[in-house]
Amino acid sequence: MDAGLFTANNVWMMLATALVFFMHTGFAFLEIGLTRQKNTINILFKNIFIITGGLLLYYAFGFNLMYPGFEDGDAGFLKFAGFGIAAPEGGMTPDYADGGYTWWTDFLFQGMFAATAATIVSGAVAERIKIGSFMIFTIVYVGLVYPIVGAWKWGGGFLDSWGFYDFAGSTLVHSVGGWAALVAVTLLGARIGKFGKDGKPNAIPGHNIPMATAGVLILWLGWFGFNGGSVLSADPELTSLVLVTTSLAAAAGGFGAMITSTILYKNLDLTMFLNGILGGLVGITAGADLMSPNEAVIIGVLAGILIVFGVALIDKLKLDDPVGAIAVHLICGIWGTLAVGIFGSKAGIDQLLTQLYGVLIIGAFCVVSAGIILGVLKTTLGLRVSRDEELEGLDIHEHGMDAYADFRMNQH
Amino acid sequence: MDAGLFTANNVWMMLATALVFFMHTGFAFLEIGLTRQKNTINILFKNIFIITGGLLLYYAFGFNLMYPGFEDGDAGFLKFAGFGIAAPEGGMTPDYADGGYTWWTDFLFQGMFAATAATIVSGAVAERIKIGSFMIFTIVYVGLVYPIVGAWKWGGGFLDSWGFYDFAGSTLVHSVGGWAALVAVTLLGARIGKFGKDGKPNAIPGHNIPMATAGVLILWLGWFGFNGGSVLSADPELTSLVLVTTSLAAAAGGFGAMITSTILYKNLDLTMFLNGILGGLVGITAGADLMSPNEAVIIGVLAGILIVFGVALIDKLKLDDPVGAIAVHLICGIWGTLAVGIFGSKAGIDQLLTQLYGVLIIGAFCVVSAGIILGVLKTTLGLRVSRDEELEGLDIHEHGMDAYADFRMNQH
Amino acid sequence: MDAGLFTANNVWMMLATALVFFMHTGFAFLEIGLTRQKNTINILFKNIFIITGGLLLYYAFGFNLMYPGFEDGDAGFLKFAGFGIAAPEGGMTPDYADGGYTWWTDFLFQGMFAATAATIVSGAVAERIKIGSFMIFTIVYVGLVYPIVGAWKWGGGFLDSWGFYDFAGSTLVHSVGGWAALVAVTLLGARIGKFGKDGKPNAIPGHNIPMATAGVLILWLGWFGFNGGSVLSADPELTSLVLVTTSLAAAAGGFGAMITSTILYKNLDLTMFLNGILGGLVGITAGADLMSPNEAVIIGVLAGILIVFGVALIDKLKLDDPVGAIAVHLICGIWGTLAVGIFGSKAGIDQLLTQLYGVLIIGAFCVVSAGIILGVLKTTLGLRVSRDEELEGLDIHEHGMDAYADFRMNQH
Repeated sequence: MDAGLFTANNVWMMLATALVFFMHTGFAFLEIGLTRQKNTINILFKNIFIITGGLLLYYAFGFNLMYPGFEDGDAGFLKFAGFGIAAPEGGMTPDYADGGYTWWTDFLFQGMFAATAATIVSGAVAERIKIGSFMIFTIVYVGLVYPIVGAWKWGGGFLDSWGFYDFAGSTLVHSVGGWAALVAVTLLGARIGKFGKDGKPNAIPGHNIPMATAGVLILWLGWFGFNGGSVLSADPELTSLVLVTTSLAAAAGGFGAMITSTILYKNLDLTMFLNGILGGLVGITAGADLMSPNEAVIIGVLAGILIVFGVALIDKLKLDDPVGAIAVHLICGIWGTLAVGIFGSKAGIDQLLTQLYGVLIIGAFCVVSAGIILGVLKTTLGLRVSRDEELEGLDIHEHGMDAYADFRMNQH
Repeated sequence: MDAGLFTANNVWMMLATALVFFMHTGFAFLEIGLTRQKNTINILFKNIFIITGGLLLYYAFGFNLMYPGFEDGDAGFLKFAGFGIAAPEGGMTPDYADGGYTWWTDFLFQGMFAATAATIVSGAVAERIKIGSFMIFTIVYVGLVYPIVGAWKWGGGFLDSWGFYDFAGSTLVHSVGGWAALVAVTLLGARIGKFGKDGKPNAIPGHNIPMATAGVLILWLGWFGFNGGSVLSADPELTSLVLVTTSLAAAAGGFGAMITSTILYKNLDLTMFLNGILGGLVGITAGADLMSPNEAVIIGVLAGILIVFGVALIDKLKLDDPVGAIAVHLICGIWGTLAVGIFGSKAGIDQLLTQLYGVLIIGAFCVVSAGIILGVLKTTLGLRVSRDEELEGLDIHEHGMDAYADFRMNQH
Repeated sequence: MDAGLFTANNVWMMLATALVFFMHTGFAFLEIGLTRQKNTINILFKNIFIITGGLLLYYAFGFNLMYPGFEDGDAGFLKFAGFGIAAPEGGMTPDYADGGYTWWTDFLFQGMFAATAATIVSGAVAERIKIGSFMIFTIVYVGLVYPIVGAWKWGGGFLDSWGFYDFAGSTLVHSVGGWAALVAVTLLGARIGKFGKDGKPNAIPGHNIPMATAGVLILWLGWFGFNGGSVLSADPELTSLVLVTTSLAAAAGGFGAMITSTILYKNLDLTMFLNGILGGLVGITAGADLMSPNEAVIIGVLAGILIVFGVALIDKLKLDDPVGAIAVHLICGIWGTLAVGIFGSKAGIDQLLTQLYGVLIIGAFCVVSAGIILGVLKTTLGLRVSRDEELEGLDIHEHGMDAYADFRMNQH
């Protein structure tokens, strides 16, 4: 391969890495925007912990757990290539990864992905989880569970052998986070005041909707790198198709959710519009490289509709997910993974069943893993802050500071 | 063309596309920052609607209306290549567009441009327009008017045959939005309280100047893609020149406005500084590839000065444009288009006249189109919210939510 | 060199330029987030002035002062290549700069760096400096001091001849700003109320910690361009290594500071976590291309620990640096420069001594220069606003506007 092509590929992958990194800003904005001012510092602290800790863990051993080099034909479950990483012979030349990028770019791109799964959980458990317990959960989940699951498909393990397909992580990233969010929310219980005595849900409005909106736009931008980089080279045809399917699904997801919620609730609900965009993005992620633009629009619209009903369902189950993470990442993650068997160039009943098996196996593993980690934490350190702390806010109790020291607040 | 060059070109164009997409975050921040807290959700909702709807419309038919494939020598006005798009034979190879990008990148880059025109209008009509009417206006203006005008020049139509030049859209994007803003503001009337009984304008201060500032910086960043991508390849000489002229014009525009407003009003006015930057950016856009850096500085300074007098003029005309969109996008859009005939490698009296004809023809078409669309809406659905709604804020009335639920607000 | 490689290189360098530009948004967010609401407009105005003015000055003469073309073997101190710049013969071809970028990209990348030094000062002097004096200081410091120092190493001057190494500017950018910040803070004195009658420091909490957090994340993102672009081409091996060392040092810096401050103060201090990230970034900057990832982690952790003790030391010296700029940019800038002699491929006692000489010589020059400029300003225009203005806020006095017109504020 000539140096120009190798260099252009690597430039694209490095910038995709930068965009995926920027998604953490988007998640942070989204999560604090949709929650209350009194817990803002706590959420930001968790997010900063996830990014920094996640990257260090992935460097120390996550990358080696996720890409352990299963032998050909080995339906691998688990293998560990040792602590720390060093570039292999030829890892900086076009011989590595078909010249799509260097070994170091590979590590950093994957490292930026790794932290995402924990960030998804962070939003769902916001405003009531003990930060120490969350930090331990993050370390184990990002350090072990995420890379083990990733190895099954992207690392060349047994799901890959079976033909399971997940282009950029509807299942491997989003539902891995979403399942843990579901388990965590169940174990934690709802925030005080979320459900009335009659069991009806009360809206607890977010304190900074402009930031939440900016968060979604930054996430959309970041998805240019998340999906576009998952081509693993700058192949002009495939990368540009992926950006088109990704953006159209995002737009269609927003529209689907906005129209559905307007019909159902007679309200131009911005939050639903935003979560619809995210749902469309998560939905297209498993098959962004397989779909025609028309199929991307359909997948997006259906994801947007699913968001509206998903949020209602989660309320009905008396689960309290302040940012809608379960609807966005779990429900649309499953939808997107199954859609690979329904639309696009791999569609077919066999593929659909394989997708379903993948969803179920990974779901079971994540639920059990998250259940064990969080269950142990619940019976030891405890998962939930005290009632007083929850009412007064985690910021003052855990961090001794206000997010907005100069502003007067409403009682809430 | 070798694969390395084609790939590098396409990488640049995809990232330019991402940067133009990010401009919508900049516009959103700018518009809410310069208006009142009580209408924030409404503005954000409009912006999200424009991005998602604009992209879907451009996919459904806008792209085919803007690039319909006029025959050579055909001084085309209007042609429609049909609904939906599919990549043409060879559209993903270096044979397409001289290897500057793929067909899908082409579509997405242009699609991100399309929504901009409506966003410009959104700022000018903020805080009093009925959202339903604005949504319909957006659909027609972005879906039909913008691509028809675009076809006249970028689609190879009659203005292109005449030699009219507009590199990245001082006229085709910015003044297309600016003219509609002018018409809309005239039909809507001023916000309650904007002009006193004596006719003197009252300042209605924006509620979040940090966000407005961030918006301008993001827009400047986005202009790296807006102008840099308009080279339609990564040609090193031309793209790097364009980034230099663009950034120098932005800086000079800011300086021009800051110094002018400080001399006139004895006040270090941040908003004027910011709008000067935007004026410089809009001003350089028509000829960013034709100008020397010195000429870019001159064009920018003059754009900055124009901003200060333009804002004063609009006040004097009793027009109420909360964000200064008309001064920035219309006045500086015209200035930049004419500047192509005054400075740079195409300067000359013939070119200047051609530029003037282009400005006038497009202006007339936009004013008439916007007038018809908005006039029909005014006499049917109505354009303006009720007095009560305007006073209490559009957020509660149209969207049932607050932008900042936990903060106490001043009466305003 | 083939066109593909040249184009890919230039694309990388242009996007690195865009990322460095975006850092100014990060600095603006960080500075206003960590200070009080009443001085927000003032800080933003200063930042916008620095970006626009800095770029224009660098165009007018800074670039020619920094890269004057010292003769080979000439241990140059000062040379000026004249006002204004024009691309040299061949400046747009692969013959220039080994095909790493075009002359225009070179100028713009360096121009975006230039403004950074003044921005560092801006944070330290916030909330009490007279804006006119600060503007004059900026012009002289960015226009003269920064490029003269830069010429000594990057321009091929005497420090370069000696073998002093500073990859991307731990000393040439960060400590140049940091020394001036130290001088300015000393000459200005502390904000009213910062130190009690007993001399004990009082925390003056920042008014918008979400913005400060976003600022740090944007700065980290920008460092992809700051360090990644300092390779001066898109060389796949070197750029990807630099991104890895940069990101690992950032993560490790955050961790080092977070754990140290938690042990010392029993508080999960988000601000310290954030400044630790910045410290890690500044610390790796001098040798990002020389270090292994393990060494990057060590440099980062130590930078993070230094931040915690550095902030305490500055408090003990009764210096008032509202954003921690001296600890981040000066202390970690020195640390990173010395680390080149301790770790990585250039480590050795000779290199360490050379690094130390460079730090001391540049430090002396910056302290003297800043002392003269600020000393003259202090005795003529004055450096500090009146007591009334400081108490009521600079926004109302200097700019006649509020940052958040619709929000109620706490007395503070």
